[in-house]
Amino acid sequence: MNTNVAVIGASMTQFGGRDAWVRELLAEAGAACLDDAGVGPETVEHCYVSNMASGEFEGMTGVPNALAHDLDCLPAYTQRVDQTSSSGGAGMYAAWQSIASGASEMTLLVGGEKMTHRSTSEATDVIASLTHPVEYKHGVTLPSFAGLTARLYLDQYDAPRESLGKVAVKNHKNGVDNPHAQFQKEVDLDTVLESPIVADPLRLYDFCPITDGSAALLFCPESVAREYTDEYAVIAGVGGATDTHVVHERSDPTVMNGVVESGRQAYERSGYDPDDIDVAELHDMFTILEFLQMEGLGFAEPGEAWRAIEDGRTERDGDLPINTSGGLKSKGHPLGASGVAQGYEIYKQLLGEAGPRQVDADVGLACNVGGFGNCVITTIMEAST
Amino acid sequence: MNTNVAVIGASMTQFGGRDAWVRELLAEAGAACLDDAGVGPETVEHCYVSNMASGEFEGMTGVPNALAHDLDCLPAYTQRVDQTSSSGGAGMYAAWQSIASGASEMTLLVGGEKMTHRSTSEATDVIASLTHPVEYKHGVTLPSFAGLTARLYLDQYDAPRESLGKVAVKNHKNGVDNPHAQFQKEVDLDTVLESPIVADPLRLYDFCPITDGSAALLFCPESVAREYTDEYAVIAGVGGATDTHVVHERSDPTVMNGVVESGRQAYERSGYDPDDIDVAELHDMFTILEFLQMEGLGFAEPGEAWRAIEDGRTERDGDLPINTSGGLKSKGHPLGASGVAQGYEIYKQLLGEAGPRQVDADVGLACNVGGFGNCVITTIMEAST
Repeated sequence: MNTNVAVIGASMTQFGGRDAWVRELLAEAGAACLDDAGVGPETVEHCYVSNMASGEFEGMTGVPNALAHDLDCLPAYTQRVDQTSSSGGAGMYAAWQSIASGASEMTLLVGGEKMTHRSTSEATDVIASLTHPVEYKHGVTLPSFAGLTARLYLDQYDAPRESLGKVAVKNHKNGVDNPHAQFQKEVDLDTVLESPIVADPLRLYDFCPITDGSAALLFCPESVAREYTDEYAVIAGVGGATDTHVVHERSDPTVMNGVVESGRQAYERSGYDPDDIDVAELHDMFTILEFLQMEGLGFAEPGEAWRAIEDGRTERDGDLPINTSGGLKSKGHPLGASGVAQGYEIYKQLLGEAGPRQVDADVGLACNVGGFGNCVITTIMEAST
Repeated sequence: MNTNVAVIGASMTQFGGRDAWVRELLAEAGAACLDDAGVGPETVEHCYVSNMASGEFEGMTGVPNALAHDLDCLPAYTQRVDQTSSSGGAGMYAAWQSIASGASEMTLLVGGEKMTHRSTSEATDVIASLTHPVEYKHGVTLPSFAGLTARLYLDQYDAPRESLGKVAVKNHKNGVDNPHAQFQKEVDLDTVLESPIVADPLRLYDFCPITDGSAALLFCPESVAREYTDEYAVIAGVGGATDTHVVHERSDPTVMNGVVESGRQAYERSGYDPDDIDVAELHDMFTILEFLQMEGLGFAEPGEAWRAIEDGRTERDGDLPINTSGGLKSKGHPLGASGVAQGYEIYKQLLGEAGPRQVDADVGLACNVGGFGNCVITTIMEAST
């Protein structure tokens, strides 16, 4: 912890169905990020790629080498960071470590995934390969865990089904103002509640879509940042933690220990408390996950997160705006890109560059969830002073 | 660079054809490494897995989460480090960064791959997916690059074909004394030179085999190391660099720029010169690569490495023993494990625990090559004083 690590540039591509391979999407985001910071490619020392499954989806590996070549960053050191659906958050942690350790003075992180050329069942199967082999063999997928957990949560806390639907409504509403989002349209509560059942009680609109896209962030020591700009963000604290790989071994499935522990670390390292957080991007791959993260991160008491959405507290004009970007729900979820795109949104909010999505924020938090809470990374960022 | 990073434990499994999934191999090596160091699993804060392609080879992802669960390391942070065939070296770099940055005080690195259940052509195809798409489409594989480069080297430097064969003979001889090696048997020069042609002029015995296996190392700050032991190794310097993703764009294919640049960084960071290195593990996936790395790392002048093997300088009783472990050639090459297993050999040599393979060494170097030199990591370790 000997260097303050700054973020001095950010970019994201259009999310959605893209007629491009992940390699092209990464190059698009990476080049735009260097442009955004006004940093030449020859200055990059480390280049990390957050990606879960380019080999499985596209039959292409070694993508970080290709990216460094395409961006003209050679001989920058390259590496792929994989932590399944939280690869982007893991990339932010790796980038932070590269700067804080002194290994690099300029680290480009690009997250991306290309998925929509595969069928939904093929894509779901690739993602399900992250579950425990026993779970996988019995046909368990992440959506099925989400349905079971949502049912348990609603029963345990006497929460209304509608509260879950309202997460989708809120995040779609935010997505309307995000030009990069896959879905830029509002949905009303009835549409959510009457959409086809996927995993009872959850319905189609409780789930994020399958998405292609990429996002990038540029990291350097704060002392170097000042050579380029006065307007940047600082990584205040990161935490990462793992929960049981077998979901049924968790004593209370409505508590995500990885969220709790990664949040505890991030708060401790940053010196901030949940009350200090002005804006948060949470991993709403399924609507129920937004509640579980709110509770695990101390934004609501256990069993109380649903009241916050009922009271409008997590809307853009509430006291804790959540998923101003539209979240995974409307922005889309290109696995390796999602955590980086969360960082992009927090960065833009802290710099006052979020346009119609802008809220008043000096400190922001991103929580990126791998698997069904199997591994979680929480990152707290603050505006430069 | 604010912390001296120590290695306090090491292990490797039997390499070869193993009737176990990568997850089981990783757990075997990880548990043995913690045992070796006398460190309890609850002490582990970060747990990295070096692995190229568990998804492609086994249809299983999220392996780091499974490992932390299996070793009872929860809630340790987990992540997969992938840099194709140099994933192990990349893991050492990541582990070093995790400690040097202060993110972790105890990092377990486990590298592993399970390959032998797939046919040679299937395995080669997975590996070839790391090449540039244009190269891949034309059927280029890494062995074909090796053949072309070997021909060029022999012609350019008027080197005898036999010198390449002598690399295989030497490394097989060393492997006889490595109980973990896939092949523990000597081969004579005639056997190498008369084995079937794979990629002219290279023959079967110029190539490493396809292998299952795992290896592990345990990292912590030097101050913490002293709580456990007086006998440990220190990471003196690491360097990582990328070369063109398209091999034909290299001005001289007999010079691996990634080797040169990663070596330059490792020497600069450690303060050592090539002359200071007492023992080295080089990435002899193909015999020609041992020459290219010797030259890139300054152990021989360009075009002169073949003379060193002719003169016996790289034998165990020479002035620079290379691949005392048997190298990838006889020990085997389970992709993600190989760089970690290089670290294992250097660690054992520095601690005087290499048994019949022991040489006199205070400073050692490992060079791990991804792709055909697409990305290279060089690590210099020294014995504790």
